[in-house]
Amino acid sequence: MRFSQSLIPTLREPPANAEIPSHILLLRAGMIRQLASGLFTWLPLGVRVLQKIERIVRQELTKRGACEILMPFVQPAELWRESERWDAMGPDLARLADRHKNEYCLSPTHEEVVTDLFRNNISSYRQLPCNLFQINTKFRDEIRPRFGVLRSREFIMKDAYSFHLDEETFNETYRAMYDAYSAVLERLDLEYRAVQADPGLIGDGESHEFHVLAQVGEDALAFSENSSYAANVERAEAIAVGARPDPSHQLEKVSTPGIASIDSLVQFLGIERDQVAKTIVARGANSPIALVLRGDHELNELKAARLPDVLQPLQFASDAEIERAFNCRPGSIGPVGTEVPVYVDRAAANLSDFACGANENDFHYTGVNWERDVACDRVVDIRRVREGDPAPDGSGPLSIVRGIEVGHIFQLGTKYSKSMQASVLDSDGKNTYPLMGCYGIGITRLAAAIVEQRHDDIGIDWPIEAAPATVHIISLNAERSELVQQTAEKVYDECLGAGVDAIYDDRSERPGVKFADADLIGIPHRIMIGERGMQRNQVEYRFRRGEIEAIAPSSVVERLRS
Amino acid sequence: MRFSQSLIPTLREPPANAEIPSHILLLRAGMIRQLASGLFTWLPLGVRVLQKIERIVRQELTKRGACEILMPFVQPAELWRESERWDAMGPDLARLADRHKNEYCLSPTHEEVVTDLFRNNISSYRQLPCNLFQINTKFRDEIRPRFGVLRSREFIMKDAYSFHLDEETFNETYRAMYDAYSAVLERLDLEYRAVQADPGLIGDGESHEFHVLAQVGEDALAFSENSSYAANVERAEAIAVGARPDPSHQLEKVSTPGIASIDSLVQFLGIERDQVAKTIVARGANSPIALVLRGDHELNELKAARLPDVLQPLQFASDAEIERAFNCRPGSIGPVGTEVPVYVDRAAANLSDFACGANENDFHYTGVNWERDVACDRVVDIRRVREGDPAPDGSGPLSIVRGIEVGHIFQLGTKYSKSMQASVLDSDGKNTYPLMGCYGIGITRLAAAIVEQRHDDIGIDWPIEAAPATVHIISLNAERSELVQQTAEKVYDECLGAGVDAIYDDRSERPGVKFADADLIGIPHRIMIGERGMQRNQVEYRFRRGEIEAIAPSSVVERLRS
Repeated sequence: MRFSQSLIPTLREPPANAEIPSHILLLRAGMIRQLASGLFTWLPLGVRVLQKIERIVRQELTKRGACEILMPFVQPAELWRESERWDAMGPDLARLADRHKNEYCLSPTHEEVVTDLFRNNISSYRQLPCNLFQINTKFRDEIRPRFGVLRSREFIMKDAYSFHLDEETFNETYRAMYDAYSAVLERLDLEYRAVQADPGLIGDGESHEFHVLAQVGEDALAFSENSSYAANVERAEAIAVGARPDPSHQLEKVSTPGIASIDSLVQFLGIERDQVAKTIVARGANSPIALVLRGDHELNELKAARLPDVLQPLQFASDAEIERAFNCRPGSIGPVGTEVPVYVDRAAANLSDFACGANENDFHYTGVNWERDVACDRVVDIRRVREGDPAPDGSGPLSIVRGIEVGHIFQLGTKYSKSMQASVLDSDGKNTYPLMGCYGIGITRLAAAIVEQRHDDIGIDWPIEAAPATVHIISLNAERSELVQQTAEKVYDECLGAGVDAIYDDRSERPGVKFADADLIGIPHRIMIGERGMQRNQVEYRFRRGEIEAIAPSSVVERLRS
Repeated sequence: MRFSQSLIPTLREPPANAEIPSHILLLRAGMIRQLASGLFTWLPLGVRVLQKIERIVRQELTKRGACEILMPFVQPAELWRESERWDAMGPDLARLADRHKNEYCLSPTHEEVVTDLFRNNISSYRQLPCNLFQINTKFRDEIRPRFGVLRSREFIMKDAYSFHLDEETFNETYRAMYDAYSAVLERLDLEYRAVQADPGLIGDGESHEFHVLAQVGEDALAFSENSSYAANVERAEAIAVGARPDPSHQLEKVSTPGIASIDSLVQFLGIERDQVAKTIVARGANSPIALVLRGDHELNELKAARLPDVLQPLQFASDAEIERAFNCRPGSIGPVGTEVPVYVDRAAANLSDFACGANENDFHYTGVNWERDVACDRVVDIRRVREGDPAPDGSGPLSIVRGIEVGHIFQLGTKYSKSMQASVLDSDGKNTYPLMGCYGIGITRLAAAIVEQRHDDIGIDWPIEAAPATVHIISLNAERSELVQQTAEKVYDECLGAGVDAIYDDRSERPGVKFADADLIGIPHRIMIGERGMQRNQVEYRFRRGEIEAIAPSSVVERLRS
């Protein structure tokens, strides 16, 4: 690719409206341009990055037996009504009518279409398992598209769907896809974590998210430094260490006038937050429900919402509801003597001699002990893990990092095969609904995630397999030297001839401009051809920000391959 | 690709609702499936065909300096309002509103978006010429989608747009694109014609269509067997040969009671159709306009519409309008003595001693001669050429064939650059509107066109560069012979190892079923591995419908390469 013939509109200054590094750098390096809110054009260098990522994804999936197909982007409403998602999806789903007033949507995902394809073309267990993928455009009408191509409305996804007669082949495929996703991220030279995810609303079963670690990540991930344990903080199990100490204090009711928060209580009593049990009240199916946590811990609302009797999604009781249930103001409530059902977090259940509200305005208890003073028969995991907590696999402390979700693999169970009547005959000739899995990687999102993780103050640092080119060839002041000009052309031709993907900056710009653009664009190998080197028949080679090496022009291809 | 793990649902019988060979065969060979009217899923074998076509297109364009980009499919209405196409496009343009009630369309073409990209990123003549292409999904809400993927609503196009400061660089790029399109069709081993096209409504200037010859083609093409002359029949120039003979008959007014058609006139007078001048009346800006053609010729309405004063698009005068203008019924009108402006086709102008209506009910003239009896000062080309007509380049007779339009290259002039204010500074620092060209190839349509041209009664005959695979490996009754099984696996592995794209029919189906599927799918090279051959350490090789050759299993890769 000749720089002069391409469209690489690099920018010296950070553009307005771009907040995060990937958005700023992809704009500045001339790889993307915004057309409208959440709609982006990929320019020549950006398209190359996408194609390279797609190539890796295609190779890793095909190698593991997945078959590529291509489904329509515009999809008939009827299929979405069959799966009951036409209404469930809400305004994220972009809808339109054709000239005959038939309704369609722009697909954010293809479960319906692939299940329809399956039921019309596969009828026997002998055709299973079957794993189909596509790389295609998707649309999600985000309320507030932001962060450039990291959260755009139109985007490119690789989505795959598998169909199985039994758990065993399902687990095999699930594992193969897990491995494929890991292989993709490893080839991209990214720091990533595959974490247990909250399955959310798409399916019923287990799911894993693949996160590229980066500060702007929207998700917090807990992982063990000493084992493979990793989970989304939303999902990470919190365990309690050791046994509950024996009681050593008497239960005492203390007058605490005006004390209505953990902070003021610990100050008033001169104790630490981890010696207090705090009570949060959720709405339940029949009555309010008390959730007791250690004073220094936070409730994990997703875990709490899964408790029996608790309303889903989680709703907190109002002050009035609390006063009615506990006969005191919210700041004085506690587990002792209440008739409300009490769920105690594992860590709170390990407390002894702790403080808590006395269910009487302006009074707290100190020296409270479970069993002796108050029952503790519903011990559950309802807290959010934090840095330093013990990993649930016993491997040591948890670390917490931020990640960008670039992939997600799900067990869908029979949700779609049942609702859309996609059955096959099993080996006994009986109709059976196949298990399904679904597997997504955001291609455009991955391009942005790479930049988030791999950049510095001067530009992007592309991994070799996703770089817009393997080598960036720069001629210096070629308009003053025919030899420089000829050598640069020759090196470029030799690269192309050897199948080495090259960008050749053949513009008549100052060397400083060319260097700054090359830094911004971030292609790993660089060849610089200037008059000084020519005198010794040498060009300069550099790998990323490393040392500059003088080499012969004729050895460039060899050097790039070594 | 292992047949057993892929989704290749071949059909023994022609499916309902498929009328033309490509639709029938792509369905039967398990390459496409319809999701809804005009919406198709491409199955694994079909996706491979598309990817191979895309690869060829990409290579031929890139080689000629075009740069690949990727623009959004969903596009804001504002841009289409700027170019005044939002209203002009009518119901073919699929429209939708987002959650904020902003209007968008699904793009059938990208002139607006690319011109917007241009005006925001290119400001100097030094950045021109610039030629940008993409391979992307498009949508056109056809009234009656038909013929499968040949005329679907959602389809894949390669569209390119070039920008130029002057005619010279424009012509260079236009020629390069012409060559690129020719190269693509040659690599696909297709019989095709590049023809002068009617520019239609998209632009003003010259345009060429690329047609793949096939009986189902919607267009008729005229071409010379002896030269490179070729044009869409809508556009082909009709010439008259020789000079007008001198008059030899007297003008006579003949009573022709009840004679109101050419057919009845020639029967009544005992003459040939080519001795009659027929008059057709079109509506003009100020008065009706008479169009005179030889009795055996047909009007080319597009040519007629381009005459000065004739309304565009062409409208024919009603019977009442004709009677008012000629003072007689339509069956008796003619050029002699009328006050209506008369345009005479070149061939009609070469007549002498001809017959025509006398502008008096139930009367015709015979022995009419131009100049002597009636003026002939507006001689024009307004007829449709037909088989055997002389080619306008004087190379001999024209042949007429039917073609499927798979590509189109246009001169857009400054239509978009002006309406969207996309100017650049020229070398004198003056604002100037660049000339634009646009260039399209229908990728999905090309796949169908290949099948239309290359099929026989048993299946498709893919050109090597577009075939879903290079070789189709078939094991015969492998469940009865471990050696067959092992050899087939080994041959398959060796092909993959050598980078030869292979489909391996590893199913436990009868040989007849496997052969029929292979015939249908139409991969050029075939390897058959059965027990009989194994006894002599041989497998069978066949190229298309050619002779079967026995070769050693270890020489398969070598044979495929030779």
